[in-house]
Amino acid sequence: MKDKNLTATLLLSCPDRRGIVSKIAQFIFERDGNIVDLDEHVDEDDHIFFLRVTWDLKTFTVPPERLEEVFQPIANEYQAKWFIRLNQNKRKIAIFVSKYAHCLQEILWRHELGEFDTEIALIISNHPDLGFLAERYHIPFHIFPITKENRALQEQKELELIQRERIDTIILARYMQVLSSTMVEKYVHRILNIHHSFLPAFAGANPYKQAYDRGVKIVGATCHYVTEVLDEGPIIEQDIIRISHKDSLDDLIRKGRDLERLVLARGIRLHLQDRILVDGRKTVVFD
Amino acid sequence: MKDKNLTATLLLSCPDRRGIVSKIAQFIFERDGNIVDLDEHVDEDDHIFFLRVTWDLKTFTVPPERLEEVFQPIANEYQAKWFIRLNQNKRKIAIFVSKYAHCLQEILWRHELGEFDTEIALIISNHPDLGFLAERYHIPFHIFPITKENRALQEQKELELIQRERIDTIILARYMQVLSSTMVEKYVHRILNIHHSFLPAFAGANPYKQAYDRGVKIVGATCHYVTEVLDEGPIIEQDIIRISHKDSLDDLIRKGRDLERLVLARGIRLHLQDRILVDGRKTVVFD
Amino acid sequence: MKDKNLTATLLLSCPDRRGIVSKIAQFIFERDGNIVDLDEHVDEDDHIFFLRVTWDLKTFTVPPERLEEVFQPIANEYQAKWFIRLNQNKRKIAIFVSKYAHCLQEILWRHELGEFDTEIALIISNHPDLGFLAERYHIPFHIFPITKENRALQEQKELELIQRERIDTIILARYMQVLSSTMVEKYVHRILNIHHSFLPAFAGANPYKQAYDRGVKIVGATCHYVTEVLDEGPIIEQDIIRISHKDSLDDLIRKGRDLERLVLARGIRLHLQDRILVDGRKTVVFD
Amino acid sequence: MKDKNLTATLLLSCPDRRGIVSKIAQFIFERDGNIVDLDEHVDEDDHIFFLRVTWDLKTFTVPPERLEEVFQPIANEYQAKWFIRLNQNKRKIAIFVSKYAHCLQEILWRHELGEFDTEIALIISNHPDLGFLAERYHIPFHIFPITKENRALQEQKELELIQRERIDTIILARYMQVLSSTMVEKYVHRILNIHHSFLPAFAGANPYKQAYDRGVKIVGATCHYVTEVLDEGPIIEQDIIRISHKDSLDDLIRKGRDLERLVLARGIRLHLQDRILVDGRKTVVFD
Repeated sequence: MKDKNLTATLLLSCPDRRGIVSKIAQFIFERDGNIVDLDEHVDEDDHIFFLRVTWDLKTFTVPPERLEEVFQPIANEYQAKWFIRLNQNKRKIAIFVSKYAHCLQEILWRHELGEFDTEIALIISNHPDLGFLAERYHIPFHIFPITKENRALQEQKELELIQRERIDTIILARYMQVLSSTMVEKYVHRILNIHHSFLPAFAGANPYKQAYDRGVKIVGATCHYVTEVLDEGPIIEQDIIRISHKDSLDDLIRKGRDLERLVLARGIRLHLQDRILVDGRKTVVFD
Repeated sequence: MKDKNLTATLLLSCPDRRGIVSKIAQFIFERDGNIVDLDEHVDEDDHIFFLRVTWDLKTFTVPPERLEEVFQPIANEYQAKWFIRLNQNKRKIAIFVSKYAHCLQEILWRHELGEFDTEIALIISNHPDLGFLAERYHIPFHIFPITKENRALQEQKELELIQRERIDTIILARYMQVLSSTMVEKYVHRILNIHHSFLPAFAGANPYKQAYDRGVKIVGATCHYVTEVLDEGPIIEQDIIRISHKDSLDDLIRKGRDLERLVLARGIRLHLQDRILVDGRKTVVFD
Repeated sequence: MKDKNLTATLLLSCPDRRGIVSKIAQFIFERDGNIVDLDEHVDEDDHIFFLRVTWDLKTFTVPPERLEEVFQPIANEYQAKWFIRLNQNKRKIAIFVSKYAHCLQEILWRHELGEFDTEIALIISNHPDLGFLAERYHIPFHIFPITKENRALQEQKELELIQRERIDTIILARYMQVLSSTMVEKYVHRILNIHHSFLPAFAGANPYKQAYDRGVKIVGATCHYVTEVLDEGPIIEQDIIRISHKDSLDDLIRKGRDLERLVLARGIRLHLQDRILVDGRKTVVFD
Repeated sequence: MKDKNLTATLLLSCPDRRGIVSKIAQFIFERDGNIVDLDEHVDEDDHIFFLRVTWDLKTFTVPPERLEEVFQPIANEYQAKWFIRLNQNKRKIAIFVSKYAHCLQEILWRHELGEFDTEIALIISNHPDLGFLAERYHIPFHIFPITKENRALQEQKELELIQRERIDTIILARYMQVLSSTMVEKYVHRILNIHHSFLPAFAGANPYKQAYDRGVKIVGATCHYVTEVLDEGPIIEQDIIRISHKDSLDDLIRKGRDLERLVLARGIRLHLQDRILVDGRKTVVFD
């Protein structure tokens, strides 16, 4: 297997134009890089080109620290939005939780197994309940109790903490508070949430209760990026499970937990591997 | 295999009370019937009991024509809503279509294979387009073009036709008109519709377009009973299919066709086999 | 919600005969029991009747300790195999593991959440590796290293331990040893195993490697009762996940872990709730 | 939407080497072609590179008839197996059937809807039963009754017919005869079969009966290329459906029909769109 630490991944989007794949492939080839993975997509409605390419840096003639500078002219030529990550530089994440343990448990357990290529720097909660889990996995646990009155102040403190810790990505693992726009604007497409319904069905509060009352035969879970508008951010991953009239509301909640855990875990993995490009309200997911 | 034509099926719901299963099992046993299938469910929220029981009539001492009369006292005792069908008496159905062939095609094909225990008495359409399919399978095809002006009149004629033909159940196989309340009230829980989304997501018009624009990763289809309120009737069956950013709107429509066909077919089968009891906005499906 | 501790569940199978549902429903009703759940099934090939019925003991006139004695004559009349469990008497389980943590982790975590109505009395392993998990959840952990030479002796000791602890059910949570027939015979249909393939495909060793080499597009996991013949016991539950050419063998193993965890957990829950009756090589699962 | 008739698709595999994506992208770009779709994959075990690229020919400076000749030197340089198809040249297919209608019905129906970009030139059967379907859709129907004695002779005639008709691809739509190696060798990776099980489980005869007897909780269907060894060819697509103890063998067959139809249809579509590359016993499917 290739050593992932010696690769770079470029995510790029730009107005669709002839020759762009050729240009970028040549850019890598001429500098003795070896493409190990390449995916592209064209949004035919808006004529936008999306690319993800990973190449081996072992023999690459551009030193990592000069990579961005050397690539910039090509990006300019194609008016591209772009981002290069050296895969040795792990993203650092913070997890926000409230009282439900299952999503946090799942993330910590997978991380212990080595499934996520990341550093979990800290856990933030508005309740003390899940401190025991943080302790179990030796992750710093910070409690910021939130009331109507102190909300703005507490979030300000949270923001200072995560900026001080150079957090790259925030995971809302059943965090029961709505983030302010200040936070959201600072972490555009870098805050992942799990919503316990098949969005856009049952947005908002108590989705399992809504689903139970409506008598649906399938419940779902949705991992999405957080944007200004609640439960409206670009969807990363969804999955479902069948239910029947035999399932009580408690059964829905229990079955839903399995779904939430898996869907959030898949979303996090895709994000950490830089497999997601945002296309307006949608995502392009190169899995 | 048991001869289905010599069985009876009782569907019953009533306030939950001790002894009801025993009472009904005894009713059948004492008259020399043999239970071949029994399912029960209790709605714990509203304390309603639901039962479906099928028994063999071969040795049953009550003649079929007196069955309802003999059962009535038990039903009264438990304040039950109930319904007995002799399985030799097939339900007679009418199919309503507009221009899309796939759901009609699927129903006719399955009927030809013997999957549905029913008589398809006629097809009604507001367009001539699907006449060729009706002809192919030798089913009478009636065209009732509908405009804003003639809607009430035409539906009145449709109603006369289906009543004259003693239609028991109406299948809306991608029928693109909204039925009036007159029709709906006459066929309570006997009109099945297929909606091409995972309800309650994307109710109303153009669900695939809505799903495409929202960027969901899964699309669905829903078979439900038609009630006064559009797309709000009790859900019978749902299913889903995964999509990705690679799928165009045309792909969603194409993939969705497969889903619609299967979900509607399953719903029809459940209904024709008397496996569905309505519980307010929900269904109890004994499959 | 009903208090589960005051209910009894009867599992019964016998040659199919008229009147049996009535007989048992009446047995419960006449002694002032209230049926809260009843499921029945007839194996039409072999004419065997299967029943699961749960009833409320609050007003039941037979004291729990005399229940079996009072029911025995009915069982005799129908030549039934049967089993009654008072739901206040939890099954006590032992978990066997080797080196893989994920299944054990999942069971302990769900147990902590209250999903399993059981007591996890002890964990047995042939390796010390997972002791940390046992410790984390405060479950006694017993190591029995196994070699070709000591196998019989060690298993004898295991057997003594689990009998001394009055273990009802054994869960093989990726236990990498084959149990001897002595153990299997003592715990007929009370040993659950998780096999990491969609049985009967890829029985035996290294199923993911087999699946990878064969180029299947779907991998599965199977929870089954352990019998004399390896991977041939009655199947309780199966599920699958899609894979593609992009998935390496490591990806299959990683994705498979999620499947194994869920499928084993569902199987355990069904077993602990007495929802499974064995029908030769098959199971009747009243879920 | 792009006019598919003015595009070319290249399928290529070769030993993995640096610079190949760049080389091919440049080949297209320098001749004023526009890449509309590109997918690549590296088999890390055997170090084989796989590519599928589609480009627009409207402004391409190489005339279609000279395309292969101009590309040949690149292929030689990389020791590639390759294949270019002008998408205006539809593949011509023959369908082989026996007595089961559902797969043939599905293919004809989808073709009528325009889902398959192909010409269905003829249907071959060893029984007259499905002639009515061929007639319904106006496809020539050829009957070649097969006995032990005449097998070789009849297949020789079939081969002459399909070669005379310049058939590109053969679809075995529940054809109940095993093709001889003569036929298979002439149509390597151009004969698709649907097997009514989740291969490798239940290969050979009566897979539903095998599945029913084994008591599995899920049944599957597999679309694969036909090779010398029965049911061992590279798998193109698989899918599954849940079953339970309630399902009789007839139910399995009925439910399986839906699966077979869909899985075969997906396989055909992938093949007709040149989305499949064979990698030993496996397939790379660029969907």
